[in-house]
Amino acid sequence: MAELRKDPIVERWVIVSRERGKRPYDFSFEKDIIKEKKDCPLCEGNEFMTPPEVFSYRKDGTKPNTPGWQIRVVPNKYPALKTEGILHKERRGIYDMMNGIGTHEVIIETPNHIEDIFSLEQGCVEKVILTYRERMIELTKDPRFKYVLIFKNRGREAGASLNHSHSQLIATPVIPKRVKEEIEGAERYFTLERRCVFCDIIAQELDSKERLLWKDDNFISFCPFASRFPYEMWIIPIRHSCDFKQITPDEIKSLASMLKKTIRSLNKIFPNIPYNYIIHTSPARSDLRYFHWHLEIMPRLTKIAGFEWGTGFYINYMTPEEAAEHLRQKE
Amino acid sequence: MAELRKDPIVERWVIVSRERGKRPYDFSFEKDIIKEKKDCPLCEGNEFMTPPEVFSYRKDGTKPNTPGWQIRVVPNKYPALKTEGILHKERRGIYDMMNGIGTHEVIIETPNHIEDIFSLEQGCVEKVILTYRERMIELTKDPRFKYVLIFKNRGREAGASLNHSHSQLIATPVIPKRVKEEIEGAERYFTLERRCVFCDIIAQELDSKERLLWKDDNFISFCPFASRFPYEMWIIPIRHSCDFKQITPDEIKSLASMLKKTIRSLNKIFPNIPYNYIIHTSPARSDLRYFHWHLEIMPRLTKIAGFEWGTGFYINYMTPEEAAEHLRQKE
Repeated sequence: MAELRKDPIVERWVIVSRERGKRPYDFSFEKDIIKEKKDCPLCEGNEFMTPPEVFSYRKDGTKPNTPGWQIRVVPNKYPALKTEGILHKERRGIYDMMNGIGTHEVIIETPNHIEDIFSLEQGCVEKVILTYRERMIELTKDPRFKYVLIFKNRGREAGASLNHSHSQLIATPVIPKRVKEEIEGAERYFTLERRCVFCDIIAQELDSKERLLWKDDNFISFCPFASRFPYEMWIIPIRHSCDFKQITPDEIKSLASMLKKTIRSLNKIFPNIPYNYIIHTSPARSDLRYFHWHLEIMPRLTKIAGFEWGTGFYINYMTPEEAAEHLRQKE
Repeated sequence: MAELRKDPIVERWVIVSRERGKRPYDFSFEKDIIKEKKDCPLCEGNEFMTPPEVFSYRKDGTKPNTPGWQIRVVPNKYPALKTEGILHKERRGIYDMMNGIGTHEVIIETPNHIEDIFSLEQGCVEKVILTYRERMIELTKDPRFKYVLIFKNRGREAGASLNHSHSQLIATPVIPKRVKEEIEGAERYFTLERRCVFCDIIAQELDSKERLLWKDDNFISFCPFASRFPYEMWIIPIRHSCDFKQITPDEIKSLASMLKKTIRSLNKIFPNIPYNYIIHTSPARSDLRYFHWHLEIMPRLTKIAGFEWGTGFYINYMTPEEAAEHLRQKE
């Protein structure tokens, strides 16, 4: 059983997994990604290779865990956290811990062996977003879960072990540290300025335009002012809302198109670029008027070195203004 | 000229460098490390390949920037920050920034083309630590610098672009976010418990021994309770001191031997493993009774994926207790 352990200094939670505890030689520096469709557990026809599905969009009359689906959600075969059980906390001397209750799911975005979300049809990407929303609504009902995180690792350098287009969901019994930090920052700004910091960012980016990528009725995408990484991109709804679950059907259409557009532009500059994206939303069952959900895309062009890890102080050798210019040209 | 830009939400500073601004195709996913001694700018005889040295330990009678040195400190050829100039702050709408004043130095740990610090003689490693102290004392005098960070990137996966054994130093005009966080955490603990959290950690690790690696009169090394990474190791002085600069000659001897021992044990399990280490010390010209300097070693066995970046919530598939057991066997 995995454990959650808290660092007593900075109060950062770490999932320490005993069950997957590997012997020293199990850590390989280079791991092969499955390239062949017949070996890919996420391909249609290989449903038996994954744990049974917990959600799917599939053709009428087809049975779960058989072909005929468009989107399929399955528990992670090697979950970091386990769903079953009662949450209990423990103290060992100065250290706090709890058992590893949570959920870890894989959202398979297409039955075909397609490698990147921007290559999917508009309608498919809309279904992916709809699935994000459905799973988040469902898991938020569980009072043990304090946060539902949806993210994508694309490419080995970004932490993916499969190249078939997929996202992941992790529900955690604590609010993760960086999420808390962002919420506290937004609250601090709101207390001072009586405005949402994200709404102010949108206004300034629309005004200056130098870091703006694209805008439609519902979303803007831009390279943030203090970008940590070259070509970092954010997508944010223009309508103030703290909660991704509140996304409207119209906004889902916009987000799908914006996601395709931004990631396609990045891929036009760097084909098959590894990247991560993460949905930043409010914690489960909270209503924070000073928070504003958004999606952050982090291309993995550079190595994160000791300086960054030790300090949280990033060096970015590409200005977001330049990056935005390059990306806009690739529309 | 580089700029320092502040994220308006979480108040994280990022160095955005214009001068090194690269065209989109300059980012290569794989970069070759110089393997040949004749091409290595850090080797004895190639002093002309680096900017002029700012500090060295060298044989009597030898001239700066010629052979005859044991340790050599040179400005980084591609510095993230520039030393010259007056610090000025600026506000653009909701965004804060300042000019990129600071120092970025390379500490060349040996005149020979040796790749890892644990392979150096005890006396050489002591000189490396002495150099860290000397440079930190010198740069702390500059009132523009709020923090002096000393760190090592070993191996390409850990961000190194040269394989000749070296460390780096960056002096910054702001206190980096993670440093602030650690200091605030230690202060919070001190306020509650009236004790240093690091001293309490030392006591508990010595008591339980399950995560302990080695101990001598001056230092202990151990795998921390909430290790973020497999085989993460910390080295901490037993004597309570917030400031690395206050290290005594006796402690330098211990630290050199502890550093060699811990990194050697890691290398016995994973030959040529990429890793980072970072000295966590108090900010320049501060005296924090609740802080306790230490050195953190982070092996790079796994990829940091979206989940970790988005949340600061790490998944570690190796318990520190197991890791400590493996490492102790490799003494």
